[in-house]
Amino acid sequence: MRYFVARMDKPEAAPRPSFETHPSRYRHWTLAVEGEIARLTMKVQPFGGQDAEVELKSNSYDLSVDVELADAVQRLRFSHPSVKAVVVTSGHDRIFCAGANIYMLASSSHPFKVNFCKYTNETRLYLEEASAQSGIRFLAACNGATAGGGYELALACDEILLVDDGSSTVSLPEVPLLGVLPGTGGLTRVVDKRKVRRDLADAFSTLAEGIKGKRAVEWGLVDAVVPRSKFAEAILQRAKALAAAAPAVARGPGIELDAVEPRVSEDRIEYRHVTLALDAGARVATLTVRAPEGEVPKDAAGALARGAAGWGIRAARELDDALLRLRFHHEGIGLVLLRTEGDRAKAHAVGELLGGPQRNEWILRETRLLWQRVLRRLDVTARSLFAVVDAKSCFAGPLFELLVAADRSYVLDADGVEVRPGALSEGALPGWNGLSRLEMRFLASPARAKAVIAAGREGPIDAARAHQLGLATVLADDIDFEEELRVAVEERASLSPDALTGMEASYRFPGPETLATKIFGRLSAWQNWIFIRPNATGETGALSLYGKPERPRFDWRRT
Amino acid sequence: MRYFVARMDKPEAAPRPSFETHPSRYRHWTLAVEGEIARLTMKVQPFGGQDAEVELKSNSYDLSVDVELADAVQRLRFSHPSVKAVVVTSGHDRIFCAGANIYMLASSSHPFKVNFCKYTNETRLYLEEASAQSGIRFLAACNGATAGGGYELALACDEILLVDDGSSTVSLPEVPLLGVLPGTGGLTRVVDKRKVRRDLADAFSTLAEGIKGKRAVEWGLVDAVVPRSKFAEAILQRAKALAAAAPAVARGPGIELDAVEPRVSEDRIEYRHVTLALDAGARVATLTVRAPEGEVPKDAAGALARGAAGWGIRAARELDDALLRLRFHHEGIGLVLLRTEGDRAKAHAVGELLGGPQRNEWILRETRLLWQRVLRRLDVTARSLFAVVDAKSCFAGPLFELLVAADRSYVLDADGVEVRPGALSEGALPGWNGLSRLEMRFLASPARAKAVIAAGREGPIDAARAHQLGLATVLADDIDFEEELRVAVEERASLSPDALTGMEASYRFPGPETLATKIFGRLSAWQNWIFIRPNATGETGALSLYGKPERPRFDWRRT
Repeated sequence: MRYFVARMDKPEAAPRPSFETHPSRYRHWTLAVEGEIARLTMKVQPFGGQDAEVELKSNSYDLSVDVELADAVQRLRFSHPSVKAVVVTSGHDRIFCAGANIYMLASSSHPFKVNFCKYTNETRLYLEEASAQSGIRFLAACNGATAGGGYELALACDEILLVDDGSSTVSLPEVPLLGVLPGTGGLTRVVDKRKVRRDLADAFSTLAEGIKGKRAVEWGLVDAVVPRSKFAEAILQRAKALAAAAPAVARGPGIELDAVEPRVSEDRIEYRHVTLALDAGARVATLTVRAPEGEVPKDAAGALARGAAGWGIRAARELDDALLRLRFHHEGIGLVLLRTEGDRAKAHAVGELLGGPQRNEWILRETRLLWQRVLRRLDVTARSLFAVVDAKSCFAGPLFELLVAADRSYVLDADGVEVRPGALSEGALPGWNGLSRLEMRFLASPARAKAVIAAGREGPIDAARAHQLGLATVLADDIDFEEELRVAVEERASLSPDALTGMEASYRFPGPETLATKIFGRLSAWQNWIFIRPNATGETGALSLYGKPERPRFDWRRT
Repeated sequence: MRYFVARMDKPEAAPRPSFETHPSRYRHWTLAVEGEIARLTMKVQPFGGQDAEVELKSNSYDLSVDVELADAVQRLRFSHPSVKAVVVTSGHDRIFCAGANIYMLASSSHPFKVNFCKYTNETRLYLEEASAQSGIRFLAACNGATAGGGYELALACDEILLVDDGSSTVSLPEVPLLGVLPGTGGLTRVVDKRKVRRDLADAFSTLAEGIKGKRAVEWGLVDAVVPRSKFAEAILQRAKALAAAAPAVARGPGIELDAVEPRVSEDRIEYRHVTLALDAGARVATLTVRAPEGEVPKDAAGALARGAAGWGIRAARELDDALLRLRFHHEGIGLVLLRTEGDRAKAHAVGELLGGPQRNEWILRETRLLWQRVLRRLDVTARSLFAVVDAKSCFAGPLFELLVAADRSYVLDADGVEVRPGALSEGALPGWNGLSRLEMRFLASPARAKAVIAAGREGPIDAARAHQLGLATVLADDIDFEEELRVAVEERASLSPDALTGMEASYRFPGPETLATKIFGRLSAWQNWIFIRPNATGETGALSLYGKPERPRFDWRRT
């Protein structure tokens, strides 16, 4: 308890995880590729996690484990394009994965808990996106006990095979044992992806010991159970079958992803194309993305030749890293000003290449999907986002999306201020709900989204026309612009951070719902609520007392 | 502050509101009907609310105000079938409605806050359902300041007219002034119903003073603004136009709704057809609905002749009242056993009448829609629901829905135990997500829902067959049944009430999302979270300090 209280009270003492790694440095996973089939094997190093004091028993994970998984998925896409099926399994004999480590979770601050769950949710959704959009199928080879987040990892795969050894179960013990929800999409995927009958789902999710064998298949919790003696063979066969049935998409040759390695100081994170400048006192950050400086490649071959150094890949990875550092290292920043700088024509040209006739060429598709993931990461980042459009800015190509991802846009009404939507904005970079950001913006009138696209086809759009087209929340001239922005920034930074999070979560995904919006919008909101209720994290809450002899004491009022 | 703390600490001291009223006893509303047009005028009696110590200034409301509104909507449907358009307005000169009373809210316990918001949300959705399914159009005549819950009430109407007097605004000041969300569907309806551009929605919802005049129309927040001198005339014209355009549906003659008036003791609420038996110590209640005893009417004329005394209307109203008493008066009950008793053939016959060839006759349609509302109320009641099927039970007709609404069903495997789905279960009583409860249950395989319907057409379904068809979570014989149920009840009643609420909210609405599921599943979850954060309800939280000179102090970490 001492540790728990200490960390809650000192937000600045929160760990500052790194989001960069490389297979050669993995401590918890191994990635082995053999032709069309890759094998991702989890064997968590018990004292090799984020916090050397927390033992990661039974293949339970912390953020450092998930960072490696996310890295592996990214590298499978960029460096191992031959792979069509991935076996996700465990290096232990009798245990697949026990889920998120409970002591790590119980001893974390509320913001860390929320950000941890968000990151693991994103990684699971990236598996599903790789399957849906790049034809990489995932097979969960559950060679032992598959509990909580372990089962949620399996649920994110296309197929789940469970060993049938009389004892190995799949389970979601969070509700009965911890008094919290399975926080990584488990509830949603059980009824919405696997479409398990909801009364059986209810019984399953309150049964701490889980379900095994034939019943797990009958209830739809796994696809098949296989005796231990035949397990290895069955996994190989199913992996081959999944690879054979995977859709034919353009592939490789692969490229290496080098390290992003920003220069980090207390108030500034500096990348090649991205700068995150932090004003902790004002609780405001400025995230600036710069357009390419050199020549933009003309085609897929040109892009491939640049490899990971090409702006399309590099800038996206830098932006991704900046967003993660913002979330985990700078919890007190409430508002992010999204700025862009540089040559609009070049940013536009990148977009036209990524969204143009060659868009399904391997390197261009993967670069586009990388931008899709990074922009979706931005969409679910719980900070207010104001785009600032002035004479220096270059909201064009993929950077145009920053303008329409923002909660508001402030546009300077002056000569030379221009934005330019292009091929990418026509639906090539959909948000988590499947709509383009222009479609979300103009939900009342799809024709207005089309009008923006049409205007962009003619050329850059000046400030007045951008306003007319509905791209500016506020248009102000030289005399008023800075003052108007300053007041808006101060006002925003003064509002309740919780209320803003709830409001932005409601406004950023109008229209249709998907598995992902249910996870980020609904499941995560319930989990946030439950995480801070005394019934979970109070002194006698179930999460606080996990592993201790005392029984939790609840306030029984149902709400 | 004293009052706030006192009530939080003594859940038993929470008020026990009544949900029955009659226009002759309204303190806050008047309902005037003239042919096709009704006028619902709100003039809240400042010290006439739930709590005589809280002044309901500026047409702000508490639960007692909303109970009258819900009653009026119900009576419009049953007693005033001629009405095709309803003008919702205020009896004050310069104010339409200021929303939920903040002092009432701030001084309420968390469970009361949540239940209050749920009830007001249900009432708003009932307005929209009356419009969509009974052709009764609602016109919000905003004759003055329309703030917070006042604007949310307007948003639930089909059309919003705002007086253009240079000062009257519509506003959602919850985020900037109170640090909470507009809790009655405001955020959802702004972007999902009115499809306001999301950056404008963002600006609007952080602007405490709101938006008035032409800009309110341009942003899509209201449909028109009208000068005060022409306001009355414009309202009348629009109401007539809405009535003229309302779809032609079968109407009236109306019936009077008598009082339900249960006999209430500490552990039992007794109605004519419904009993709610409470075991506070075990935190378990048994809700029993009895089948009709007398003859079931053969047709709409027969049903009309019975009026409100007919079982179809009476039992539904009793069930509704029992659910509300359960929510507000018995917060400690975590599990409800749903039981039915009586003549299965009669319950089935009611269902066949309500869902049969005459289903669109006025009295049958309104009775069916009443069941739809009551069952939806059950679906969002945050208590675990186990249906118990034994030899006495009669899960048939509308009562069959209780079986499939439950989180689990326990079926006794014995002779004479039968259930029977009928015409109502084929989609005539959809849940909030638009699916029938059988479709939700068998999301993986719509054919299985059809198989249940087909079996019901042939006759009653015995226990073994019900299990085979997927209607039993647990089937147990005489020897095991009581013990199995006893253990399940004890286990369920021992789990964290918060985790169960989050889990049930996730499992009860698989599949598609609607405005209503977004409100109950997403918006309400965020609001629950925000309501208990210190930033809102802590000693220096924004909600706690509202109206006081101190400024709130926030924990700025964004999550």
